[in-house]
Amino acid sequence: MAPPPAGLLSLNTATTRGRWGLAQAIEGCARRGIRGISPWRDLLHAMGVANAARAIRAHDLTVTGLCRGGMFPARDARTRKANIADNLRAIEEAHALGAQCLVLVVGGLPAGSKDIAGARAQVKEGIAAILPQARAAGVPLAIEPLHPMYAADRACVNTLAQALDLCEALEPRKPGATGAKPCALGVAVDVYHVWWDPQLEAGIRRAGKRRLLAYHICDWLVPTTDLLLDRGMMGDGVIDLKRIRSWMTRAGYRGFHEVEIFSAANWWKRDPDEVLATCKARHRWMS
Amino acid sequence: MAPPPAGLLSLNTATTRGRWGLAQAIEGCARRGIRGISPWRDLLHAMGVANAARAIRAHDLTVTGLCRGGMFPARDARTRKANIADNLRAIEEAHALGAQCLVLVVGGLPAGSKDIAGARAQVKEGIAAILPQARAAGVPLAIEPLHPMYAADRACVNTLAQALDLCEALEPRKPGATGAKPCALGVAVDVYHVWWDPQLEAGIRRAGKRRLLAYHICDWLVPTTDLLLDRGMMGDGVIDLKRIRSWMTRAGYRGFHEVEIFSAANWWKRDPDEVLATCKARHRWMS
Repeated sequence: MAPPPAGLLSLNTATTRGRWGLAQAIEGCARRGIRGISPWRDLLHAMGVANAARAIRAHDLTVTGLCRGGMFPARDARTRKANIADNLRAIEEAHALGAQCLVLVVGGLPAGSKDIAGARAQVKEGIAAILPQARAAGVPLAIEPLHPMYAADRACVNTLAQALDLCEALEPRKPGATGAKPCALGVAVDVYHVWWDPQLEAGIRRAGKRRLLAYHICDWLVPTTDLLLDRGMMGDGVIDLKRIRSWMTRAGYRGFHEVEIFSAANWWKRDPDEVLATCKARHRWMS
Repeated sequence: MAPPPAGLLSLNTATTRGRWGLAQAIEGCARRGIRGISPWRDLLHAMGVANAARAIRAHDLTVTGLCRGGMFPARDARTRKANIADNLRAIEEAHALGAQCLVLVVGGLPAGSKDIAGARAQVKEGIAAILPQARAAGVPLAIEPLHPMYAADRACVNTLAQALDLCEALEPRKPGATGAKPCALGVAVDVYHVWWDPQLEAGIRRAGKRRLLAYHICDWLVPTTDLLLDRGMMGDGVIDLKRIRSWMTRAGYRGFHEVEIFSAANWWKRDPDEVLATCKARHRWMS
């Protein structure tokens, strides 16, 4: 299988967290010939949305996503309402940046709750509440199924099939309908979260070109020493990245490959310029 | 919902690991009025199978499972053959103890491999190879789907649906066929591994009485600080144990509730008699 075009690489700013602000990440990408970027909102707010949009345009980068919306469930209606308001702000920010999607990490169980079905119902309500504004703003919403080990505290949407069921429930497609434009509601496929799923290939096929809004890469290390902050660089773990990419391509995905590596003990300790150089090399040969 | 009968509690010896050998665990269960036990093979070998069988009979305990067979995948055919031979020994041991099932933790990726589909094929071959002997010995094999966070290094069967697909492929049931006897091939439902699965209720229903061979309980802590050794006592986490038990009961399961808690930082540090007393109380009120 041919290496992926270098021009499809995108940097999720989580990969250089703690080292680079957004302005530095934008400069770093430009300097290294990385053509896509996906900012986290804390860095975006620190730089200012208008400033960020200007710098990104100046370097002609593609914003492959904004991280993140979501986090819908809460114990009380007031907090759920505040969460929705925050998602609406995120949609505005994504629009201002011309982001290809707003990534939704949907949220887990409210504190003290054991009702995961209830949390899932709240997620559905939350997405339904923001979908009209997202559609109006031209910002597709990308539900990111998170690894089941995050079901309690980060996201109670844990498989691609479950995310697609949500999409179909909230934005049904007519059978056989196709088209060039992405759906207003789709999915972000992050290999870290879904690589293990025996239904992954079927899920990617089912999503199809119009619901495949983002593709995130990294690797699963063996052993993994931390549930959150021990992701690996492409090629250092067990994920068959080439195979998953081939499924994405076959399903019609032509978008960027966004590197998102949370790595407190390793990559976050290194010079971000070195990290970017490694991302480029590994993307080419291991992904 | 009424508390579960105290007589249905079983102790998996992982819960008192490092503190009690098997003889002590048998005595401890008898002393505390716990009527079921599920030994790990290392403890069983240390005590000796004949000795263990005698002590278990003397106290009239039910052996709710033997932990564990499985671990089928390997890089080379010779190791795979050795793994199968070890599983055959485990079947003999389970038979000698009168165990209700042999629990299969099927194994993950062979060292250096990224081919999870290949590992899954090896698991299927491995189970197929031992199923005739298991049937002949009257030892049902219980495939235990493990949490997806163990897909690489412990078990590449990660959902109940996937385990049931394996069962149906290797031991098809005639549609509508029922009967009192358990299948020769079924599943062990451990809440820790499957609680997050949106298809859990459907999977338990699909398994039905004859394929539900074991039920393991503990809890999922928030936060979870270690991927392997940070399981919680029933009631200390977010799993809706009563709801899952109601699904098991509705599907026809009438077997034991086996407590299996790996907890290096907490329960393994305590006096095992205190741990058993806590298991009993929590089983009654939180499960």
